[in-house]
Amino acid sequence: MTKYKIKFLPIDRICLSEDGETVLEAAMKSGIHINASCGGNASCGKCRIKVLQGYAPSGVHPEISESEYDSGIRLACLTTPHSDMTIEVPLESQVDRLVLKKRNKASSILSVSDIGEFVAGWDVDPAVTKKYIELEPPSLDDNISDLVRLTRALKEKYGINGISVDFKVLERLSVVLRDAGWKVTVAIVQIREGYKLIDVESGNTVEKNYSIVIDIGTTTVCAQLLDLANCSVFKLQTKGDTARDLCTLAESSDYNAQISYGEDVISRIMYSQKKGGLKKLQQVVIGTINSLIKELIEISCVNAEHISQMVFAGNTTMTHIVLGLDPKYIMLSPYTPVATIFPTVRGEALGINVKNHVHIYFFPCVASYVGGDIVAGVLGSGVFQRDKTTLFMDIGTNGEIVLGNKDWLVCASCSAGPAFEGGGIKFGMRAGRGAIEQIRINPSTFEPMTLTIGRVKPMGICGSGLIDLVAELIEVGLIDQNGKFKRDVRTNRIREGDGRHEYVVCFASETCIDRDIVITEMDIDNLMRAKAAMYAGCKVLLDNVGLAFNDVDMVIISGGFGHYIDLEKAQTIGLLPGLPMNKFIFVGNGSLLGARLLSFCKGFLNETEKIAKTMINVELSNNNKFMDEYIAAMFLPHTNQEEFPDVMEKLKNLLNANRKK
Amino acid sequence: MTKYKIKFLPIDRICLSEDGETVLEAAMKSGIHINASCGGNASCGKCRIKVLQGYAPSGVHPEISESEYDSGIRLACLTTPHSDMTIEVPLESQVDRLVLKKRNKASSILSVSDIGEFVAGWDVDPAVTKKYIELEPPSLDDNISDLVRLTRALKEKYGINGISVDFKVLERLSVVLRDAGWKVTVAIVQIREGYKLIDVESGNTVEKNYSIVIDIGTTTVCAQLLDLANCSVFKLQTKGDTARDLCTLAESSDYNAQISYGEDVISRIMYSQKKGGLKKLQQVVIGTINSLIKELIEISCVNAEHISQMVFAGNTTMTHIVLGLDPKYIMLSPYTPVATIFPTVRGEALGINVKNHVHIYFFPCVASYVGGDIVAGVLGSGVFQRDKTTLFMDIGTNGEIVLGNKDWLVCASCSAGPAFEGGGIKFGMRAGRGAIEQIRINPSTFEPMTLTIGRVKPMGICGSGLIDLVAELIEVGLIDQNGKFKRDVRTNRIREGDGRHEYVVCFASETCIDRDIVITEMDIDNLMRAKAAMYAGCKVLLDNVGLAFNDVDMVIISGGFGHYIDLEKAQTIGLLPGLPMNKFIFVGNGSLLGARLLSFCKGFLNETEKIAKTMINVELSNNNKFMDEYIAAMFLPHTNQEEFPDVMEKLKNLLNANRKK
Repeated sequence: MTKYKIKFLPIDRICLSEDGETVLEAAMKSGIHINASCGGNASCGKCRIKVLQGYAPSGVHPEISESEYDSGIRLACLTTPHSDMTIEVPLESQVDRLVLKKRNKASSILSVSDIGEFVAGWDVDPAVTKKYIELEPPSLDDNISDLVRLTRALKEKYGINGISVDFKVLERLSVVLRDAGWKVTVAIVQIREGYKLIDVESGNTVEKNYSIVIDIGTTTVCAQLLDLANCSVFKLQTKGDTARDLCTLAESSDYNAQISYGEDVISRIMYSQKKGGLKKLQQVVIGTINSLIKELIEISCVNAEHISQMVFAGNTTMTHIVLGLDPKYIMLSPYTPVATIFPTVRGEALGINVKNHVHIYFFPCVASYVGGDIVAGVLGSGVFQRDKTTLFMDIGTNGEIVLGNKDWLVCASCSAGPAFEGGGIKFGMRAGRGAIEQIRINPSTFEPMTLTIGRVKPMGICGSGLIDLVAELIEVGLIDQNGKFKRDVRTNRIREGDGRHEYVVCFASETCIDRDIVITEMDIDNLMRAKAAMYAGCKVLLDNVGLAFNDVDMVIISGGFGHYIDLEKAQTIGLLPGLPMNKFIFVGNGSLLGARLLSFCKGFLNETEKIAKTMINVELSNNNKFMDEYIAAMFLPHTNQEEFPDVMEKLKNLLNANRKK
Repeated sequence: MTKYKIKFLPIDRICLSEDGETVLEAAMKSGIHINASCGGNASCGKCRIKVLQGYAPSGVHPEISESEYDSGIRLACLTTPHSDMTIEVPLESQVDRLVLKKRNKASSILSVSDIGEFVAGWDVDPAVTKKYIELEPPSLDDNISDLVRLTRALKEKYGINGISVDFKVLERLSVVLRDAGWKVTVAIVQIREGYKLIDVESGNTVEKNYSIVIDIGTTTVCAQLLDLANCSVFKLQTKGDTARDLCTLAESSDYNAQISYGEDVISRIMYSQKKGGLKKLQQVVIGTINSLIKELIEISCVNAEHISQMVFAGNTTMTHIVLGLDPKYIMLSPYTPVATIFPTVRGEALGINVKNHVHIYFFPCVASYVGGDIVAGVLGSGVFQRDKTTLFMDIGTNGEIVLGNKDWLVCASCSAGPAFEGGGIKFGMRAGRGAIEQIRINPSTFEPMTLTIGRVKPMGICGSGLIDLVAELIEVGLIDQNGKFKRDVRTNRIREGDGRHEYVVCFASETCIDRDIVITEMDIDNLMRAKAAMYAGCKVLLDNVGLAFNDVDMVIISGGFGHYIDLEKAQTIGLLPGLPMNKFIFVGNGSLLGARLLSFCKGFLNETEKIAKTMINVELSNNNKFMDEYIAAMFLPHTNQEEFPDVMEKLKNLLNANRKK
């Protein structure tokens, strides 16, 4: 079989391509990232590369102009090497991780005392605890087995009865006990089946008991390393840096390496149906998890041997893939997952680099599109225990909403589409370096003022920027409430392109991609679909329980993205309901919040399963009420102006003000 | 590295020997059996081979005469090939399995109704049950996960609540449910942690639910395949062939392949301390188990997929080795095992060829030398539930005894030595083809009449033959009560050999080994040590609870060997106590009996653990009382004649009768 060398720039790495393999496939195999939001179907047109050297026949694509094609620009998924090659991966096709980490840092750290604010009535009491014990060495008068000696002492000293033992402990018990001079620390887990002895260590290591909690998102994986032995004292302290830093010893996040195989869960599921696809997807996300664990250990200087538990929260598809369960039927009507409650699994069995006694607790899911991340969010934000009725919104690639209080919970998943993550938007991108995150438009000149993440030349527009942009466009009167550009405005920023109107946010010379960054009517339409789905979902949930928005006491916005939304702008476009500002709370990464809480306190195990079991999922895909509400919400902010009185008042004032000028 | 071909006759197999490897090591590697009771230490002198061709320097050994050496006889453990070779493995160095199977067949089959005789108050109710269930296929109105759909139906139809699931089931659940058109049979286990779903099969297989029970002996491994679905009706029937054959679908037994690595547990433990030794021992016994499972499946024509549970009973060392646990400290004072209660283990994890949902329950042990086989015997013979006080004796390589009733149990292990299995006896052998099993001596001529297993030319003497022989020798007055030959008897059968007297049981020409088969004073001494240890052990146990033999209501003799003992002869030599014959009961393989019982009825799980936990082990190795009793018992039948009034009466009459002649 002929193999060709492909050199990728600027990262300067070489990989071999098998006969007939595309550049995208070769790059995937070698872990070199090129954006490919459609999973390699040539539909998204985002995997742009530049061929610097070598011969590779390539298909044409509407996303690539003739002049671009002449300069060597290709789509990686359409390009098949026929010789050794040198290929440049353009800036916009790469992932910049530094910004991601910075953004997640700001949003995801919450101390024990932070959690305490949301969830009441709990003490630090982790599932895995450590006990130090000194044993009498065996004698002829007392020569019971090593295990019975240990369990007898645990009973005498700590009153622990009926403890079972992990087989792996037996394999090394005799040696450890004798090497330690019969003075050991044991790790004991109390989950579901009672007490289980899972580890035995030499000497006193009671103070060294750590957990790792991970939020496995479709796009991003966030992890924290927590100190379970030394956090109880901080719970009593007030919120502050001291408490926070002492509990969370390290944190890190990274893109889910699966993003090379498709942007949303559907593309991942489709990829999983290819031969070896599921295994591959599992391997790459485990790879991401392992590299995060390595980082957490390096940052915290904790001995990896002392990590004694893990808690994972992910959406239903991610949970299935991490566990190696086939997600096929999540995608096919009537959308059934294999399971929504998962057995605790040994990390080692999944290929996770932790000691063999470390078990992973997976947050249970509710349905195919309401996953463990949402259950964790509901737990972590305390929705499940308050009298007040809360609307919990997780805005991301998929929008999930939960409505309820301590007595009842209903939820729904709105196929909002990936607009908030930059998907389906011509110059949309994830919240990375170079993404426009804030925009203001001068109401007289219609000239924009933009700020990018990392304050560099713009490369595209991320979700929060998009919300800003559309809200500004309507406030300055450039678009009407249908999201269509007004034709009579005099500015060179509005023009016709590809038969539709568009607004130029940045001209090519201002960007780092040498192309005009624009927002098209189709982009606005896509954003409206996304916001309309979210809003309609909320309406259906409320309607289901006979409530209206005014009955909602609190709106919790979860998700890394949520933190960056300008609340007022989000109301202007009708994404968030028109309620008073003081009803909104941002919780950052709610999923991680719940995972932390469970890690700190095993008492929430029952709560968690109860949340998952009692939460009623309202299926929107075949819901007539949802379709009606969706159509009504395909307006800026909404066809029913009464639902957004403040926004309507503001728009009226602004338009009047503009007219006066 | 030089390698030589070694051809073994009569089995006609060729294996390769590595440089410097002995014939024994090469044979072991290739699974060719040559007796080696000392584990290859050149101390037992039993691994005789005949070199037919090839050059191999070999050490000399007292067991091999000069003329034998000249004719090519060597010890395999002392012989290192220096060229290709042809080697004959003499008859007496081989294992004949056919006889073993025949003997175990007679002793180990017990039907449900047999068990019912020993143990009262139970119904057939296995730990693993199967339930057939037809599910509603999912719809948009009811799209809960496949797992919840299944558990919901189990709850509705069978009232099974709070069931957990084995991860392996999840991996194939969706496919099986859909392939089966939502009509499936599930296997559910109820052990310790409540209900667990362990398998799902297409269609209705409720009637196909089998278990395999295995007694893992140091010498022999016995296995049965049981029908769990169709045995309840037979419990009500009377004992008989019909009931028996319908419950036990197949049975088989084989020598534990570990016998190539040493005859008793101590040699096995010593071997396990060599590099890779434990792994090797584990592999070979798993090999024996796997070949037995294969046979059971072939005999019964059962589909291996329908085996749903296994129960193993073995002594403490065997249990450790099968589980891969280091048995080192079992051997070293103060004799502590790693564990006496073992977690349930997935068969697949130990390399056992069963479907991945099959778990193995290991009988708990009491101490280093009172193992799961004894606990199983106490369970299976009903000792634990009767008001009557029972003395339970397992006579084998190691002698274990239990005394007690439903309120209390004490036990001890007597280092009886391997005499009953032919160890330490010049012409001792295991109960295989050619072993003398019955002997009578003419009181006038002192000529013997012998019967061998398989009725062939004798090759040696097995345990039951030895007991017969010594009892006869004393009854005809050839030995005194110290076990010494009388010097004044005129017969050419008694002669001096190696400075000690011996009795010729068979002259060389009568045997199939062309050597005189004799019993020496040293042999008799070894047998007396073994029987004295057993008897003294019983005395110590009785003394411990303030009882005497007369307080014992029932003596249960367990162990395959037990079945072949002539009760009267065993009393004559003082092995069994001088109680009325009607107090003795033979139960055959008590270990298998208990394993069967647990397999049929999960309710005995608690009983089993209670037996193991409450049974008090009396350590004899440092017990002064035991030493006193042991010395007192080093007499035929005993120094205290009052303990054996019937035997003494019989001996007196016999001697008088002889004198009169």
